[in-house]
Amino acid sequence: MNAEASREAGIEKETGRIEAFSDGVLAIAITLLVLEIRLPEGEGALTERLLEIWPSYFAYLLSFITIGVMWLNHHQIFKVIKRLDNTFILLNTLLLLLITFVNFPTIVLADYLGEADEKVAGVFYAGTFVVTAIIYNLLWRYASHNGRLLDTKADPTYIRSITNSYRFGPIYYGIAVVLALFNVPLSLIWQLGLVVFYGLTGNRKF
Amino acid sequence: MNAEASREAGIEKETGRIEAFSDGVLAIAITLLVLEIRLPEGEGALTERLLEIWPSYFAYLLSFITIGVMWLNHHQIFKVIKRLDNTFILLNTLLLLLITFVNFPTIVLADYLGEADEKVAGVFYAGTFVVTAIIYNLLWRYASHNGRLLDTKADPTYIRSITNSYRFGPIYYGIAVVLALFNVPLSLIWQLGLVVFYGLTGNRKF
Amino acid sequence: MNAEASREAGIEKETGRIEAFSDGVLAIAITLLVLEIRLPEGEGALTERLLEIWPSYFAYLLSFITIGVMWLNHHQIFKVIKRLDNTFILLNTLLLLLITFVNFPTIVLADYLGEADEKVAGVFYAGTFVVTAIIYNLLWRYASHNGRLLDTKADPTYIRSITNSYRFGPIYYGIAVVLALFNVPLSLIWQLGLVVFYGLTGNRKF
Amino acid sequence: MNAEASREAGIEKETGRIEAFSDGVLAIAITLLVLEIRLPEGEGALTERLLEIWPSYFAYLLSFITIGVMWLNHHQIFKVIKRLDNTFILLNTLLLLLITFVNFPTIVLADYLGEADEKVAGVFYAGTFVVTAIIYNLLWRYASHNGRLLDTKADPTYIRSITNSYRFGPIYYGIAVVLALFNVPLSLIWQLGLVVFYGLTGNRKF
Repeated sequence: MNAEASREAGIEKETGRIEAFSDGVLAIAITLLVLEIRLPEGEGALTERLLEIWPSYFAYLLSFITIGVMWLNHHQIFKVIKRLDNTFILLNTLLLLLITFVNFPTIVLADYLGEADEKVAGVFYAGTFVVTAIIYNLLWRYASHNGRLLDTKADPTYIRSITNSYRFGPIYYGIAVVLALFNVPLSLIWQLGLVVFYGLTGNRKF
Repeated sequence: MNAEASREAGIEKETGRIEAFSDGVLAIAITLLVLEIRLPEGEGALTERLLEIWPSYFAYLLSFITIGVMWLNHHQIFKVIKRLDNTFILLNTLLLLLITFVNFPTIVLADYLGEADEKVAGVFYAGTFVVTAIIYNLLWRYASHNGRLLDTKADPTYIRSITNSYRFGPIYYGIAVVLALFNVPLSLIWQLGLVVFYGLTGNRKF
Repeated sequence: MNAEASREAGIEKETGRIEAFSDGVLAIAITLLVLEIRLPEGEGALTERLLEIWPSYFAYLLSFITIGVMWLNHHQIFKVIKRLDNTFILLNTLLLLLITFVNFPTIVLADYLGEADEKVAGVFYAGTFVVTAIIYNLLWRYASHNGRLLDTKADPTYIRSITNSYRFGPIYYGIAVVLALFNVPLSLIWQLGLVVFYGLTGNRKF
Repeated sequence: MNAEASREAGIEKETGRIEAFSDGVLAIAITLLVLEIRLPEGEGALTERLLEIWPSYFAYLLSFITIGVMWLNHHQIFKVIKRLDNTFILLNTLLLLLITFVNFPTIVLADYLGEADEKVAGVFYAGTFVVTAIIYNLLWRYASHNGRLLDTKADPTYIRSITNSYRFGPIYYGIAVVLALFNVPLSLIWQLGLVVFYGLTGNRKF
């Protein structure tokens, strides 16, 4: 192995370690979601109590698939990253902070769906994803601007396809926020559609 | 390394990453089960309070071993997977969602075993595994249909043995659901027998 | 790579995956311990409330170091394992089940230390480690009996030193159980001494 | 591969495993922080209830970024470690114990910020980081003293820069403790400044 190859191997190990740490955080964040599903206080027939908490099941399903897709997105970025710097690592930490935070709006949504304040809960939930989508764009724009941190051998078409698909994230979730102001279930169905559609059509480059 | 070998190495890295993420989710799901074991509210001699929650210990034991066997199954599939596509990833995400969900029926079972509503809890618990076993079959059938995502060098006998053993999963757990309608302890013993038997006889191909 | 080397590489990958899964479970089990430290219900000056829960701090410290040492032990075994079978995997799953379970006796100890029932809590805590130590011996004896699953190139002195040091685990923790019947603090100091001593003198073969 | 290279590969695998275990613990510790954010007991408009718990959001943000920077520090050390011994492993375990412990002072801070006892909470929070910074120094001094556990090929300038930057950790957090005695918000802003500054300027050697 010559000096250049050895330096490159070192950098790949470095980006691999940041990615492995991020993978760990995402795996834990997605799994902790289940702690939100609990039987309500009080008495009653178990069948009714199990049915009564349907908002918890739905919130769990939606957040689980959404974080799953976020993991795919995150991985998509790291596949073409070949260098790191402090700004990138800070933006990545903010991203992990937000994805982990999803746990809380999920609980709020599960608690308030079908209640008087459900619109606040719906806006809070979708709003969290607006902020997350913005950070995704910042992270990607920072890394890809003039190819700053990218592999010089990365396919330009692949890079453009990521830029294009991320651009619409904040808009799509912005629509979800507006929908939640009028009709929370509609907003949630929109979000579920988004993640299933993206999950099934995303350019993964296997 | 020629181009073909390099492409293959890239794909192997890709399936390895999905498997590592799944392993992480399963490791967390299995460990979170312990949070279910808690002393009941109220006073009393500690010895009695520790004995009183025997359903918690049993539910912990059964769910822990069951998820352990599910991890083995999952690993068994990934050993022969050499390609990925979006449908496979979505099915895999659904599978992780269900295995993580096991946490909740485990709590319900621990809370209701020996109570009036124990049959509902038993059906809910075993029913979760019926759904999980069906998703396992879907995932495997999708991947193995005409060798869609499999390693072309995979041993056909090994592939057939997986297909055959998964086929019976929904039936075995369907029996557990029916048993729970009559006698919950019997249903649980049946399930414990299943995982121990499978754990000890499964074709692991070490 | 010839056929033999290729087969060996496959088996090493296999044992590596079981070890990585176990590492994940142990890392989560050790980290979840902190959830046990909580401010008690009720009012009062914060300084007093923070001091009042010293048993929680101590139980956290002792269980954290103990699981840390268990991780080292586990790793010590896997360093010489070169083959797997179903019985070994089942024993390993039981071991993970017990180490994860430590979370519960830790909470019980933290709740009851200094209370009337502290001896029951102390026996339950130390007793969990007796069972764990026995499973460690079973796992190791099974793997090493006539070199069943060991690397044929493993150093016989290293193997004997593991056998010898594990043999005393159940006895040392049995002493802790007996001590807890008379004096719980003494039993805990004995256990703390054990893990620090083992941590500092264990044959790690770096 | 000759004997020397083989021995070196074995040791690298060994330090890699301790680092991977530590990474796992840190990833879980950082993710568990979110469990601290919960709606308060009681009734009221959801908007107000979400705003009322701003100390929880802030404590989450600060602890998340701080543990993120600690992960970078930890990784920085392991990049030049080439040997292990029992003392180093024990110090590393103590470090993980403290970083995991951060969960508890974070909850206390979130509960008491803006309350009568907030100074006690602020001192407890910053004090935890003083102890952590001291353990970081102990770990690094132990490893780097006369190059005890370091790679002989490690860059001396890099090593000196770590020594220099760690030296100030306990002092900077000592200042945070003193500030908390007078004004808790000021102390927290100081700590946030520290981690952002360190995150953006730290010598990462990518």
